[in-house]
Amino acid sequence: MTQPIVDTLVARRAIDAKTKPLGALGRLEDVAVRLAVLQGTLMPSVDRTRVCVFGADHGIATEGVSAYPRAVTAEMMRNFDRGGAAINVIAAANDVSVEVIDVGVDADLTMHGAIRHEKVRHGSRNVLDEPAMTAAELGAALAVGRAAARRAVTDGVRALGLGEMGIGNTTIASALLSALSGQPGSMTVGRGTGVSDDVLARKREIVDRAAAHHCSNGNATRDARELLRCLGGLELAAIAGAALEAAQHRVAVVVDGFISTVAVLCAARMAAADASLRPVAPALFFAHHSTESGHGLALDAFATLVDVDARPLLHFDMRLGEGSGAALAMPILRAAAAVMRDMATFESAGVSAGDHAHAHRG
Amino acid sequence: MTQPIVDTLVARRAIDAKTKPLGALGRLEDVAVRLAVLQGTLMPSVDRTRVCVFGADHGIATEGVSAYPRAVTAEMMRNFDRGGAAINVIAAANDVSVEVIDVGVDADLTMHGAIRHEKVRHGSRNVLDEPAMTAAELGAALAVGRAAARRAVTDGVRALGLGEMGIGNTTIASALLSALSGQPGSMTVGRGTGVSDDVLARKREIVDRAAAHHCSNGNATRDARELLRCLGGLELAAIAGAALEAAQHRVAVVVDGFISTVAVLCAARMAAADASLRPVAPALFFAHHSTESGHGLALDAFATLVDVDARPLLHFDMRLGEGSGAALAMPILRAAAAVMRDMATFESAGVSAGDHAHAHRG
Repeated sequence: MTQPIVDTLVARRAIDAKTKPLGALGRLEDVAVRLAVLQGTLMPSVDRTRVCVFGADHGIATEGVSAYPRAVTAEMMRNFDRGGAAINVIAAANDVSVEVIDVGVDADLTMHGAIRHEKVRHGSRNVLDEPAMTAAELGAALAVGRAAARRAVTDGVRALGLGEMGIGNTTIASALLSALSGQPGSMTVGRGTGVSDDVLARKREIVDRAAAHHCSNGNATRDARELLRCLGGLELAAIAGAALEAAQHRVAVVVDGFISTVAVLCAARMAAADASLRPVAPALFFAHHSTESGHGLALDAFATLVDVDARPLLHFDMRLGEGSGAALAMPILRAAAAVMRDMATFESAGVSAGDHAHAHRG
Repeated sequence: MTQPIVDTLVARRAIDAKTKPLGALGRLEDVAVRLAVLQGTLMPSVDRTRVCVFGADHGIATEGVSAYPRAVTAEMMRNFDRGGAAINVIAAANDVSVEVIDVGVDADLTMHGAIRHEKVRHGSRNVLDEPAMTAAELGAALAVGRAAARRAVTDGVRALGLGEMGIGNTTIASALLSALSGQPGSMTVGRGTGVSDDVLARKREIVDRAAAHHCSNGNATRDARELLRCLGGLELAAIAGAALEAAQHRVAVVVDGFISTVAVLCAARMAAADASLRPVAPALFFAHHSTESGHGLALDAFATLVDVDARPLLHFDMRLGEGSGAALAMPILRAAAAVMRDMATFESAGVSAGDHAHAHRG
């Protein structure tokens, strides 16, 4: 006898039997239903959670697109190692483990014990001049992410947050989104806070040039894997690999902000183009809505390109990256799983049901 | 030498020195700043958290305003006792303790060991006929809440969620909000999900009658304590007492949904009218924005009547009560405190600061 399949209808019926008015837990119920379907059980668990932070440098950083010097990538990796960054303290507060992975930082971080050393190269190439990666480098960076997801599976992690650190990577993500969506830099590059008119205009021009440079054949070249190779950073490729692999193992992927969303969009497109892969979309949970203006466009691209619930869980005006939003949202998944798994039903608790289906108690 | 005072400016300066672009953690920074000011320290802690659920019955329930029979109040209290309700499982998932208090349920719950028995009377009176409570009963119900807050202080709780259970109490909260704000039932009573046109019209008419009955002298009678006595339920009074007392001890009050918000609005108004009390507003954190339509009006009343940040933390379309939203929002406060307390500064971490004040990293 085969195991009964938990589809959305079965999961919805289970949540509707719980001791609460129908739908009274709102979006928490939607998350609970999606977790049950993803894990294939009405007893889902999100007890073990992790955020992977992938760090890498970018050739584009030499173009003056960031308010911070390139050295900050390595400095922040050391800060992660010592536990002093936002991702460290938010994750610790929420009982989320953190794994920091050097996939392409332009500095020697081997003396920092808490960092995993899987450097593919010392930063990606300047996308204004040449493709960011060779095919072999892209493959290696994807494999770094895949391996991180497999470690998480081995460790019993049921929800995996994906974050990044890399000076210059908002510009890279904007260029990638422009290439994927066909939208100009004026749509994909945001002002952020305090970026001057000059820098904004420069960033947009760079994004348009980069996207045009690697999309010379028009729509025909809008293959996600190839665009990721030409425009993406090493940490974006690692995130894509981690999302692809996590989805194969039915592990929830908690997408952080703008950069993670663009990387995971590549993963979703790559999975859609490969019949041997399980779709990525059912595994995706979007942690928060970043103030980076391209994020809304990236989420819209998800909602239209693949069938996914792209509503972010939190609206907190965050724009830090590092996986900080994913760590902040993790308790919501944990609570949703508990609602599905542990709540009593009207029948089991001996509570009188309401006098009509959509009752509002109280 | 006196302790330096932590005001908003000092706390903001501390958060701005942390290793992140200015403002990049968005609203999480606002919560961190408010917690530091509330606790009077740049090392705030929200390690211990609790939700108190106050249960009581209501004379108004005999008027057919709820889709659930009155017996459900007691049935749900037993469900809390056994750990099967939403508040139990959400709180457990988020490491939040739960205390269930019978302040006025119309049933004997003494055999249920996890429930605190502080019954003031077997349900409040029908507000269409007479005041809900006598002055002595109001005092007793407020004292039940105050005692709960003092227990929390003794137990080292730094954030206290306030929830309720009571069939009929959305109608009671609407009547109280109408009386406090001068707005008619058409503004304070929502449809909820699935309430028929007939029931909605009936609820609104009852709310208007109840508010008019106890506001016969017009605005002159809009004294919060007196309105709470005439219109409020025993559990709303207990919530008000708990909020008043928690604020005196600088414990964060995490307000749940519509009913809690109205009860805490009474507390804020009572504190504003009593020079011997510390204001309640600085202690308040609103967990979520309920779909109950009166909630927006109640939050607006806060923003105009007392100086408070009335933006809810979560927008999750919840409308359950029980303190479920407060339990879900608790990890946000915990993470915010950790950001203020534990994050490294640019100086301590040796990370290069941005080239202008409002830098956007990445």
